[in-house]
Amino acid sequence: MLAVCPGSFDPLTRGHMDVIERTSKFFDDVIVAVAYNTRKPSGWFTGAERVELARDALQGMPHVRVELVDGLLVDFCARVGADAIVKGVRSSADWDSEQTMGLLNRHISGVETLFLMGDPSLSHIASSYVKELALFGADISDFVTPGVERAVRAQAAKRNARFM
Amino acid sequence: MLAVCPGSFDPLTRGHMDVIERTSKFFDDVIVAVAYNTRKPSGWFTGAERVELARDALQGMPHVRVELVDGLLVDFCARVGADAIVKGVRSSADWDSEQTMGLLNRHISGVETLFLMGDPSLSHIASSYVKELALFGADISDFVTPGVERAVRAQAAKRNARFM
Amino acid sequence: MLAVCPGSFDPLTRGHMDVIERTSKFFDDVIVAVAYNTRKPSGWFTGAERVELARDALQGMPHVRVELVDGLLVDFCARVGADAIVKGVRSSADWDSEQTMGLLNRHISGVETLFLMGDPSLSHIASSYVKELALFGADISDFVTPGVERAVRAQAAKRNARFM
Amino acid sequence: MLAVCPGSFDPLTRGHMDVIERTSKFFDDVIVAVAYNTRKPSGWFTGAERVELARDALQGMPHVRVELVDGLLVDFCARVGADAIVKGVRSSADWDSEQTMGLLNRHISGVETLFLMGDPSLSHIASSYVKELALFGADISDFVTPGVERAVRAQAAKRNARFM
Amino acid sequence: MLAVCPGSFDPLTRGHMDVIERTSKFFDDVIVAVAYNTRKPSGWFTGAERVELARDALQGMPHVRVELVDGLLVDFCARVGADAIVKGVRSSADWDSEQTMGLLNRHISGVETLFLMGDPSLSHIASSYVKELALFGADISDFVTPGVERAVRAQAAKRNARFM
Amino acid sequence: MLAVCPGSFDPLTRGHMDVIERTSKFFDDVIVAVAYNTRKPSGWFTGAERVELARDALQGMPHVRVELVDGLLVDFCARVGADAIVKGVRSSADWDSEQTMGLLNRHISGVETLFLMGDPSLSHIASSYVKELALFGADISDFVTPGVERAVRAQAAKRNARFM
Repeated sequence: MLAVCPGSFDPLTRGHMDVIERTSKFFDDVIVAVAYNTRKPSGWFTGAERVELARDALQGMPHVRVELVDGLLVDFCARVGADAIVKGVRSSADWDSEQTMGLLNRHISGVETLFLMGDPSLSHIASSYVKELALFGADISDFVTPGVERAVRAQAAKRNARFM
Repeated sequence: MLAVCPGSFDPLTRGHMDVIERTSKFFDDVIVAVAYNTRKPSGWFTGAERVELARDALQGMPHVRVELVDGLLVDFCARVGADAIVKGVRSSADWDSEQTMGLLNRHISGVETLFLMGDPSLSHIASSYVKELALFGADISDFVTPGVERAVRAQAAKRNARFM
Repeated sequence: MLAVCPGSFDPLTRGHMDVIERTSKFFDDVIVAVAYNTRKPSGWFTGAERVELARDALQGMPHVRVELVDGLLVDFCARVGADAIVKGVRSSADWDSEQTMGLLNRHISGVETLFLMGDPSLSHIASSYVKELALFGADISDFVTPGVERAVRAQAAKRNARFM
Repeated sequence: MLAVCPGSFDPLTRGHMDVIERTSKFFDDVIVAVAYNTRKPSGWFTGAERVELARDALQGMPHVRVELVDGLLVDFCARVGADAIVKGVRSSADWDSEQTMGLLNRHISGVETLFLMGDPSLSHIASSYVKELALFGADISDFVTPGVERAVRAQAAKRNARFM
Repeated sequence: MLAVCPGSFDPLTRGHMDVIERTSKFFDDVIVAVAYNTRKPSGWFTGAERVELARDALQGMPHVRVELVDGLLVDFCARVGADAIVKGVRSSADWDSEQTMGLLNRHISGVETLFLMGDPSLSHIASSYVKELALFGADISDFVTPGVERAVRAQAAKRNARFM
Repeated sequence: MLAVCPGSFDPLTRGHMDVIERTSKFFDDVIVAVAYNTRKPSGWFTGAERVELARDALQGMPHVRVELVDGLLVDFCARVGADAIVKGVRSSADWDSEQTMGLLNRHISGVETLFLMGDPSLSHIASSYVKELALFGADISDFVTPGVERAVRAQAAKRNARFM
């Protein structure tokens, strides 16, 4: 069985890693699908950088691989033969939006979405917060791996330099 | 009795049509109010295009007409003598935001908002998804009328061409 | 057009009255349907008492009448030729449960449910609280009409007497 | 991989069947765990009856079996070697309560809970409604299998007879 | 400043203790108010037992005392001169119900309610679960103090004995 | 005890004022922290203007002062020695997002967040609505002080002039 864990991963956090690791216990293989529209660059990292950072962080998980998805997630799922999409849910607001997306994906392609509880002790970890904390020089080592931390700090320094 | 069904309708979907049709069973007349700020163009279609697409899709509903609203919805309601605003609600998150808007409109003008349940089998249909699906060439015929589909496909082709 | 406003009304509160009054602006006639299972007595007031209290409280609303419903609400709606069920919603939790009930009623009979916002300044008024407050002798005059207040106080005195 | 789908199943509905069937696509085996406290009889059907009704309804799903659980669900999971608990979720209110239960089960035993979306077109189907509809003689054939329908109607007749 | 932390505390859990301890950082004195209707015994422990268990568990918090409240919480607050009621909130469902109660209490007495976040790692701890776990002999030492654990185990043994 | 009430306050509304005033009853001093990133100007008013408008509106509250925060809120809290952050919550959606932020702030700095209920009769008042209403010439005097109203009207006139 093959699961796809989609996200923008700009960048991958320990919250993502927890969901991916638990997913890997239920599936033979897991593809972490980095959704990125190469024609409309956005965020802090390019699609290729996000993939590289995620690969580095996830190298200890043998049956997990990372791929860039520049197109519809359901088309990607069909191409790789995914049995399910797997998402972490942290709150009832999360549930509302994930359910809508899951129903849409099932409607247009038949692919099912399974949901895992986000770990409550990680529920406040989001890529957007990590970046904001880094801009102000705060400690982010609880939220990301050392490799991601270095990349985020470097980007934060560049972004701060623009304003000086 | 006259109801106003407001929205941005960029473009009108089958989810909107379901709510409008059910509204028309409770009111003598229904005005579909296309909210569009002509001074700040945004979205895929101009206000005039949205109105035209909605009119085409809704021509089978005799007591329903479509109008552009470029201003406060409550001012429009007062001008046309609306008895109520009617909105579809799909989830509890929807409810939270629609209630806030409904309370605001009642505060500033006294106009009441009535709510209908969105059809659960259409709850994942949103204009934004329709446009994203079209950009990637996916089938959107379950979500919009053939007329809207043609217009969305044409826009998607133009938008995709920009990047090639 | 005929609307049915269902509830257990044990007893009718000012929160109920607000929803019923606003409903009456959109419908020619409103039936306040007191749901009560005469074979399984429960609550503080019998079905007949609840009807009487509601009638007394609502006598100033000319097109509103009160009836006992001892059976399925949708059967009652069919019998009286109701065009819609109307319910007030106070919170997103309320929405969740009311929507489920509305979908069920539509499934088994086709009857539609319309929703009104509860007035925020009345959102904490519930029959159960009124009864608890009365048991402890607190002032409930903000929550119910004088007629209902008298009946609630009398019941509270009886119930308190049992324990002395 | 072995999944456990727990519930009280008093009785099993088509909503349950949908979740169980979809679960069976992701797991080699599925045990439908009928939670029933034999020391505190409650509900319409005994544990044994619930199991029998569920077995009858699910006989077309080859890798699904039904068992009575009279004790802690996590102890049962440990005994049968379950890899996961699987639950359907219909709304954000559902999510809130299921997540709490899932976190508790993980805390005390390490067993993970996976969640599937309930089918929106079945989201208003609940055992409690089926029983209430049956008491009033309404059609329940959309909600349960013919075998369950017969059993529910028989129970409803008995219960109604008590009051005549 | 004096805060009142109300609850049924049947029995006090580590989740309660966390909220009480954090409350005590913002207030000079904290009264843990054990709400119990002595005329309608319910639950596992009497009001006096709940108070005793809570006192034992909280003896390490110097400015916290425990009292029985057999009446309206707001009357108790007025009598002791409370500046605020303080409650922990674990989820958005919790919020919905606590807010309603808070608005009611403010309406009838003017007393304000402050809310603290429940600790996410304790969000699945509830008195009702502790009791159910104990009935089945599961380990509850993560959820309650040793003193409470002993009392819960003793009650569970008594209750189990009734059925043998 | 010192509380910090953070927000973007673009501009301060009567909803904000209600929360700030009630906060001031529980704390010796309150700092209204206007979060504004001076390197990325956004919104209608500059940070300095927001501070000035808030100071003018809040001058009747003696122990409340207003400061600009251009950096991490938790760093500001540490610098001024805040005992708590205090936020108003209006809905369960609000709760979900505020709780996440509160957990994040506690994780990175230990500072606790307390929550007050927003006044239900003000729950539909938001800075964004005030600005939109002003653009269309609607009456905003119920939502902001006369001083803020003047500033908002002046900005609205400037913004409208750009399009003529």
